[in-house]
Amino acid sequence: MSIITLTTDFGAADPFVGIMKGVIVGRAPTARVIDLTHGIPPHDVLAGALVLRHSVAYFPRGTIHLAVVDPGVGSERRALCVETTGALLVGPDNGLLSLAGPRSEIRRITHLTEEHVFLSPRSATFHGRDVFAPVAAALAAGTPVEKLGSEVRDMQRLELPPVVREARALRGQVIYVDHFGNLTTNVSAADLAALAVHVPSIAIGSVRLRGVSPSYAAVQRGEPVAVVNSWGLLEIAVREGSARDQLGAGVGTAVVIEA
Amino acid sequence: MSIITLTTDFGAADPFVGIMKGVIVGRAPTARVIDLTHGIPPHDVLAGALVLRHSVAYFPRGTIHLAVVDPGVGSERRALCVETTGALLVGPDNGLLSLAGPRSEIRRITHLTEEHVFLSPRSATFHGRDVFAPVAAALAAGTPVEKLGSEVRDMQRLELPPVVREARALRGQVIYVDHFGNLTTNVSAADLAALAVHVPSIAIGSVRLRGVSPSYAAVQRGEPVAVVNSWGLLEIAVREGSARDQLGAGVGTAVVIEA
Amino acid sequence: MSIITLTTDFGAADPFVGIMKGVIVGRAPTARVIDLTHGIPPHDVLAGALVLRHSVAYFPRGTIHLAVVDPGVGSERRALCVETTGALLVGPDNGLLSLAGPRSEIRRITHLTEEHVFLSPRSATFHGRDVFAPVAAALAAGTPVEKLGSEVRDMQRLELPPVVREARALRGQVIYVDHFGNLTTNVSAADLAALAVHVPSIAIGSVRLRGVSPSYAAVQRGEPVAVVNSWGLLEIAVREGSARDQLGAGVGTAVVIEA
Repeated sequence: MSIITLTTDFGAADPFVGIMKGVIVGRAPTARVIDLTHGIPPHDVLAGALVLRHSVAYFPRGTIHLAVVDPGVGSERRALCVETTGALLVGPDNGLLSLAGPRSEIRRITHLTEEHVFLSPRSATFHGRDVFAPVAAALAAGTPVEKLGSEVRDMQRLELPPVVREARALRGQVIYVDHFGNLTTNVSAADLAALAVHVPSIAIGSVRLRGVSPSYAAVQRGEPVAVVNSWGLLEIAVREGSARDQLGAGVGTAVVIEA
Repeated sequence: MSIITLTTDFGAADPFVGIMKGVIVGRAPTARVIDLTHGIPPHDVLAGALVLRHSVAYFPRGTIHLAVVDPGVGSERRALCVETTGALLVGPDNGLLSLAGPRSEIRRITHLTEEHVFLSPRSATFHGRDVFAPVAAALAAGTPVEKLGSEVRDMQRLELPPVVREARALRGQVIYVDHFGNLTTNVSAADLAALAVHVPSIAIGSVRLRGVSPSYAAVQRGEPVAVVNSWGLLEIAVREGSARDQLGAGVGTAVVIEA
Repeated sequence: MSIITLTTDFGAADPFVGIMKGVIVGRAPTARVIDLTHGIPPHDVLAGALVLRHSVAYFPRGTIHLAVVDPGVGSERRALCVETTGALLVGPDNGLLSLAGPRSEIRRITHLTEEHVFLSPRSATFHGRDVFAPVAAALAAGTPVEKLGSEVRDMQRLELPPVVREARALRGQVIYVDHFGNLTTNVSAADLAALAVHVPSIAIGSVRLRGVSPSYAAVQRGEPVAVVNSWGLLEIAVREGSARDQLGAGVGTAVVIEA
């Protein structure tokens, strides 16, 4: 049984995701299709890349991750399949696939050029249906990736904003805001450990928190709290509330951790 | 393996779709259930019909398409199964099923009257659960449609607003707005070809576009663009933006194409 | 084939639900996973409990219902499996599982303590991934619940607000508002029958309705109407409109039924 996950910015209002599943089920009837999310903000390639980064490890080896956040659809941007030690990633060459694994894990990048696999005619606006779903289905049905195109050396790569590491401080920022309004930063548990301050001061906007708490429940309802979240990253939350709304924060908001 | 797709205006906040899947899995355990969309605007039968129109071709022959946009639930409106050359459509007789295929493709329309198939008691507010899911499951499990009711001659039919075709101009309108704010019109690629103007002027609201572009990427970010979209229809979009918001347009907004 | 349903307040914007499915498919590859809803309002345990209450009966016996509305994640609140005569419920001990069946139906409550089943390391913010999905997968794969923890006597229980039953009147309230803006009350069809008034007056906000109608279609578009809905409860709706918006009502709004 092959597994295909889907990650897009298509939302839930339209039949676009369902149509992709129709293409897949017709070509790979036994493949298991799992929605990762279709709620990536429209055209936000970095958010899609982050979602893949923190999700692929929870799927069985060999899972095919089909991702479409594709503002360049219909242009000359390439269609790719990235084979890592654990997964196959299929999507546009715009950086979307570039954070899912460390560079050392990549075995092969394939430029998907075998047009006979695609739907015909191919639209200029919906390669999820016409290019990527057929390719994922072909992989799920056992077609070797070598038969789907030619190997290329590299792909477009995105970089996460760096954490500035000073002797007694870390300067990071919010990189992802979830449905609850929790603010995920780029500061990792390892960064915090390296700082070697028992109870650091954590400043975001006008709020200053004392130390990282073991869970949301360490504070009262409506109070802000810092935790290490399920992605292994420093998160600023409000217990049973929205840190986004209460702190007026979003992607890019600065976070300073110091002694 | 039978395939059942689901199209509703039930949204994602409630368990209604999940409950329908519970009814289906109990009666047709091996059927594959695929969500087409549950984001049809509430009670918007025409939007549901349009979604089916542009989706069914991408599913294998024999797929059962269960659709519920049903403001008349509990009234005397009939429950139908429409058999076309490629699919079985199940839903209320309010036009929802009437745009999915040309009239010549319809083989049989069945008024679903076999109440022993329905859930009992049958609510007056949720025939998706009590009538349509059991019928779709019965079809998926191999019950011939003839055993589920009696053949009828016709059904409620919807019409798309017509394109006015003049010697040197086409007058159409927006018929669908997607999650990205892209504006799909009723003007087809064939209409554009018949106009035989190399670079037509396309006017919508206060915006005038020169010609149909090969892809969104033909213009700069934030600029409006006309393309032929994945439904084969003229679409007005804003690259990496929302044409709905930027042009203040919606379903019914006029579009004029002329030399 | 085992069936696992998922009910959460995780929404659709993030990959959290998809990640849970990745954990499940890796440990119980043949289990069928069905989304009940992920649209429970954030942290609204009672809404989640209500959804389970009115959904589980529509799934085959033995279905595993995994539910995560878990403001106390990472604290000392227990993880539970509640076995009823018809289903297995898995989730946090905060009342979420307590309305799904009458007390007499409960066979066993298990405190889930077998940490070797959980993911390791276990985060403090996402037990859906690290605790509940692995437990549901273990149950689906055939592990007896007795091997997953120790039996306990009771769990946190929620109570629905009571209906005040007077000789000639019922005083209830809105307990759930759906996607359409329909207002479900705590007044049951049995309550209405016991009142034994043929055409009761139903008052909500400034609106007074005469009697319970057989369906939404009994009134004109845009008019309010009272029906018994698919949960067997009195519902106040507006035909093809939103009673929530039009009546300015929500959870907690009083409803008075009298002769």
